[in-house]
Amino acid sequence: MAGIVHKPFYNRVALIGLGLIASSMAHAIRENGLARHIAGHAKSAESRATAAEIGLCDSVHETAAEAVKDADLVVLAVPVGAMGKVAEEIGPHLKPGATVTDVGSVKQAVIDAVAPHLPPGVHFVPGHPIAGTEHSGPRSGFATLFRNRWWLLTPLAQADMAAVACLRGFLEHMGAHVEEMEPTHHDLVLAVTSHTPHLIAYTMVGVADDLGRVTDSEVIKYSAAGFRDFTRIAASDPTMWRDVFLTNKEATLEILGRFTEELFALQRAIRTGDGEALFDYFTRTRAIRRGIIEAGQDTAAPDFGRGAAET
Amino acid sequence: MAGIVHKPFYNRVALIGLGLIASSMAHAIRENGLARHIAGHAKSAESRATAAEIGLCDSVHETAAEAVKDADLVVLAVPVGAMGKVAEEIGPHLKPGATVTDVGSVKQAVIDAVAPHLPPGVHFVPGHPIAGTEHSGPRSGFATLFRNRWWLLTPLAQADMAAVACLRGFLEHMGAHVEEMEPTHHDLVLAVTSHTPHLIAYTMVGVADDLGRVTDSEVIKYSAAGFRDFTRIAASDPTMWRDVFLTNKEATLEILGRFTEELFALQRAIRTGDGEALFDYFTRTRAIRRGIIEAGQDTAAPDFGRGAAET
Repeated sequence: MAGIVHKPFYNRVALIGLGLIASSMAHAIRENGLARHIAGHAKSAESRATAAEIGLCDSVHETAAEAVKDADLVVLAVPVGAMGKVAEEIGPHLKPGATVTDVGSVKQAVIDAVAPHLPPGVHFVPGHPIAGTEHSGPRSGFATLFRNRWWLLTPLAQADMAAVACLRGFLEHMGAHVEEMEPTHHDLVLAVTSHTPHLIAYTMVGVADDLGRVTDSEVIKYSAAGFRDFTRIAASDPTMWRDVFLTNKEATLEILGRFTEELFALQRAIRTGDGEALFDYFTRTRAIRRGIIEAGQDTAAPDFGRGAAET
Repeated sequence: MAGIVHKPFYNRVALIGLGLIASSMAHAIRENGLARHIAGHAKSAESRATAAEIGLCDSVHETAAEAVKDADLVVLAVPVGAMGKVAEEIGPHLKPGATVTDVGSVKQAVIDAVAPHLPPGVHFVPGHPIAGTEHSGPRSGFATLFRNRWWLLTPLAQADMAAVACLRGFLEHMGAHVEEMEPTHHDLVLAVTSHTPHLIAYTMVGVADDLGRVTDSEVIKYSAAGFRDFTRIAASDPTMWRDVFLTNKEATLEILGRFTEELFALQRAIRTGDGEALFDYFTRTRAIRRGIIEAGQDTAAPDFGRGAAET
């Protein structure tokens, strides 16, 4: 539609940390014309060099403080454990009226770490895109990562409604479905749907690795669907996940407790040969899968549409 | 190449059980011209009617005994716990010199259940295709399910080499990579790579289901990548998996014991805030994923090539 030029949501966006999420945001912002200038900063010189080489941002800065200068939106896309330090560094350099968001997988701990460092007049709207792959770094991003994925916002009670609405629109234009919830509730839900499953996957892969020394490469060679899915989950960024477990400790330990309780019950059913208990349990879990497909959060295509033919 | 007509591996193949594996075999046999006639039998009248309706086989039979008549290859594609009963039924009706194979996920228990019922002169070559989706039934099959997947054969010491070679060629023409191993070794390797991961996935989905009553539909709604992969695994056929755990009891309990031991160590690291231990563990498990990709058992494409754009 020639002649119609939309004003972008933000004039200048600063991405602090240039991993999978930030680099995907950069691509999505460009593709959808959501900002005029993307400033970027990564702690590692190598990531900054890569970002410059592939033209990920309009400008790459050596420090976070420089990157946030004049930015209307600042996105903290660093591991949860590093959020406080970055906030402390950028606090004095933020433009009055700017919006600050983050993409951490844990929300209450990020709020506790970041909020104290932000000056009055800056709008802090914590967020969490539920999207990812097992890849990381500035080269791993792609524009469609957030399409049809949830992006949860956990604004504080005193949040500026206009600032929240603007961020919301910006995220929706990347293809995300945005919802708001309480930070602590977010942390419990995610402990169930993401954090504990990841810990379990890490553990199972670790066990297989120990046994790999017994059965040589067979554990990898004959890795069946179940295990292969686990290894993908367990290949996620170690720093990010360490921080998730350290900062969402209570909810994770609560869910882990329930998990081992149920696992022991199934283990007992196997030991005693209680086929009926096993069958009933497996039938019940099958139903939840249907719910997920109906909720549009995944595809019913065989093998996830992964295509046995292509691999 | 007009004019060249290959003689198929088998004149008549009988598929006993018409679920995902057998229906995929039927498609692959047709597509690759590997047999002249496919006879099929399913215990449920509904499955037989579906198979007839979609023309899955050349003939559908009411009993397994009828289906195996004159068959050169008989494929037992029923749950592991039903193998013995089927073998007992078909034993007297098998053609002398016929080959019998199965597709069970556990091998020693199948050998113990099936072998005693087969007459001398019939070649029993147990097998296990490491391929599947969470779908089941006669409509779920597709011709490429086995392409680039492992198909493990565990022939007995007295096996006829020509019969094994013929079955091998037949399976390879469906696209599978065939390897031979000892039955008990198979059962240990699969306990690590498939059986225990499935039990864990079932458990985690069960825990989420319990909590679903607390957090309403949010557990499904916001199910992140980790949990979504688990639900796919946990949606597999309940009867098949009940039988797997009942018949591969010892190896599964052994691996489960190691799993809980390691999980407790990680749980302790979370509780005590030992970030270094978590980081080291997560870094180690990341490496095994690379091994799987290098072994060609999966793709390194982001999100498994699942395509965030399409879902």
